Amino acid sequence: MKYNFSKGMAELKPSAIREILKNSGDTIPLSAGNPAPDAFPVSDIQQIAASILEKEPILALQYGVTEGYAPLIDELTKLAHNRYKVGNENDSVIVVSGATQIMSLVSHCFLNPGDTVICEDPSFIGSLNCFRSVAAKLAGVPVESDGMNMEALEETLKTAENAKFIYTIPNFQNPTGATMSLEKRKKLYELAKKYGVLILEDNPYGDLRVAGEDIPSIKSFDTDGIVIYAGSFSKVIAPGIRVGFVVSPSEISAKLTVAKQTQDVHTAMLSQLIVYEWLKAGKIDEHVKKNKVIYKRKLDLMCDTMDEYLSDYLTFNRPEGGLFVWAKLNDEFEMIPFVKKASENGVSVVPGTAFLIDTEATCNYIRLNFSTPSDEGIVKGIKILAETAAEMRK
Amino acid sequence: MKYNFSKGMAELKPSAIREILKNSGDTIPLSAGNPAPDAFPVSDIQQIAASILEKEPILALQYGVTEGYAPLIDELTKLAHNRYKVGNENDSVIVVSGATQIMSLVSHCFLNPGDTVICEDPSFIGSLNCFRSVAAKLAGVPVESDGMNMEALEETLKTAENAKFIYTIPNFQNPTGATMSLEKRKKLYELAKKYGVLILEDNPYGDLRVAGEDIPSIKSFDTDGIVIYAGSFSKVIAPGIRVGFVVSPSEISAKLTVAKQTQDVHTAMLSQLIVYEWLKAGKIDEHVKKNKVIYKRKLDLMCDTMDEYLSDYLTFNRPEGGLFVWAKLNDEFEMIPFVKKASENGVSVVPGTAFLIDTEATCNYIRLNFSTPSDEGIVKGIKILAETAAEMRK
Repeated sequence: MKYNFSKGMAELKPSAIREILKNSGDTIPLSAGNPAPDAFPVSDIQQIAASILEKEPILALQYGVTEGYAPLIDELTKLAHNRYKVGNENDSVIVVSGATQIMSLVSHCFLNPGDTVICEDPSFIGSLNCFRSVAAKLAGVPVESDGMNMEALEETLKTAENAKFIYTIPNFQNPTGATMSLEKRKKLYELAKKYGVLILEDNPYGDLRVAGEDIPSIKSFDTDGIVIYAGSFSKVIAPGIRVGFVVSPSEISAKLTVAKQTQDVHTAMLSQLIVYEWLKAGKIDEHVKKNKVIYKRKLDLMCDTMDEYLSDYLTFNRPEGGLFVWAKLNDEFEMIPFVKKASENGVSVVPGTAFLIDTEATCNYIRLNFSTPSDEGIVKGIKILAETAAEMRK
Repeated sequence: MKYNFSKGMAELKPSAIREILKNSGDTIPLSAGNPAPDAFPVSDIQQIAASILEKEPILALQYGVTEGYAPLIDELTKLAHNRYKVGNENDSVIVVSGATQIMSLVSHCFLNPGDTVICEDPSFIGSLNCFRSVAAKLAGVPVESDGMNMEALEETLKTAENAKFIYTIPNFQNPTGATMSLEKRKKLYELAKKYGVLILEDNPYGDLRVAGEDIPSIKSFDTDGIVIYAGSFSKVIAPGIRVGFVVSPSEISAKLTVAKQTQDVHTAMLSQLIVYEWLKAGKIDEHVKKNKVIYKRKLDLMCDTMDEYLSDYLTFNRPEGGLFVWAKLNDEFEMIPFVKKASENGVSVVPGTAFLIDTEATCNYIRLNFSTPSDEGIVKGIKILAETAAEMRK
């Protein structure tokens, strides 16, 4: 039988990353986006999980409500308010199965086929594919070292058809590592308000700042009910538990809940209870502080090693946190052949085209990740990239 | 700001069940659909979870692949083949976050707004709302005591616009408790093939048979690649872990995987590993056998008590398994006032209208659940229903 897929899904191409890297099994993974495993609170989770299954096994195993376990919602509301300065009396919090589900629920609730999502260009391929999968149009706005170009954003807001929301990762953006300035955050908020378009603020990396000062979230300005804030525990606790949270105007949270009911009914109870007990035990401050030492070491090691070995072949801005370094190969190199050659030589990186709104456009960037490989792997991987560049220069 | 929701979500009404039952907090819950908590393998899960977090904490906490943990997929492929007789060399299995996600992924992959889903009428409200949420049209086919009316199904297949799939729960259907006969299963398969429409076979209750003989699944006939089989562990292990599985033609499984990547990236790893270790330890046969004793006792208790106290007020077919009894009030009663009065008297049941394709249609049925309440609750609840009926008759 010939299958007749939906418009959004039929047109969704397999990931270019996977095609290029499918033989990269034995290479050093500078291509991944996994948080550092030595940053997981393993012993906390061992103790908490055992305690939950001992004391409240039925709670952990029975159906839960779609919005999330009520005491966890209370903890998250406090966390959002106190730690992230987001959420007011018009907002409410729901628990989701990882932050990617937020992009999916917002798409489900707001997008009809052909509607526009305004995105940073480049941006996180997972979110872009989520919007593409429901047959939305993507309108890209260039990302500068201090975030979206605001003139281009306003131009896009003026011209885009049925623009429903602006998707942004203001802290240590994936893939560019750029952090949006306070001035631009305020401007973005004003523009969204002026043009009647929502903002979807995705903050998976906010707790991974290793230099500079925290900048207020866009959601912290939200007196008009126009910002949906996506929070994640994938980089704070661990991604495998699949827990995130949304802070959004209550009318939107209610609609997201109805959508979530049709997607997965509720988030796994054991995962929710682990996060609840961990937050309630007041573990987050000390844990994030400890993790920043790990992430700073790895970020500095990668950037220092790049300075030492790669400065003749590419340029990059040192990010103040996150997981990624976005590097521009000198014009003498063709990016895709470089990535392929690097993979043959034993190190995988992601071709920048994967993150573009128009994946056919020209792009001389590569994305490097420093959290997945070991420290030795970082150094070895960068050296191989330098050897690859030297080899291709000949 | 006035929010401009998507077509499917804007029109999705809040559940009629919740409106009617929102004050039913202290009532006996004959309205729920929770599996019996004393049927959960609590001590197995305590031991397995501790062992996983001790031996492989990083595997349990790091990102996994979207299709599911590979050794679990192998176990599920064997389970599907040996236990459920589904899946051949053209099929492949993926792990999902509860079976509801299958309805969502299939909707995501196949339905454009305005496409038709052919459903049993009445059917499970969760699935109906999933299809409604993407702006699909629902075409209902009446359910008889041996499953869908096949003449009505063929008529619907002839006339429905852009029908993409037929949704069916062949075993102990929710809410009717009806099990589709082998003859009708074969006819359904033939009709779907003839009209080029897929079948979405949802089998959450298959392991809850307490009388009669198992009937082959529709997927077991699938030599044409037209059946998507939805398997669940919610009633076999526990629902709070959110693990289900799909068996479908490999081209469809690949597309469902892409859709899942945009919904929740992957199913929680700890949940997957618990199911994997539990299956690998060969626990399922003995556990299901033990559970059937519990479910048979509760089903018989409810039906026997109904025979004793309610035969003067309503009629019902005794199901051979599942979680529900579908009862038709005698014509002298109006269903909605009866449900409201019962709730005031201390027992909650679900008004049959909640499960209709056209929720405004006339319906004199109520749905009763026997797995959630205690044995005492079942008897007391049925007695209160009898008192309510006697009171309303006056």
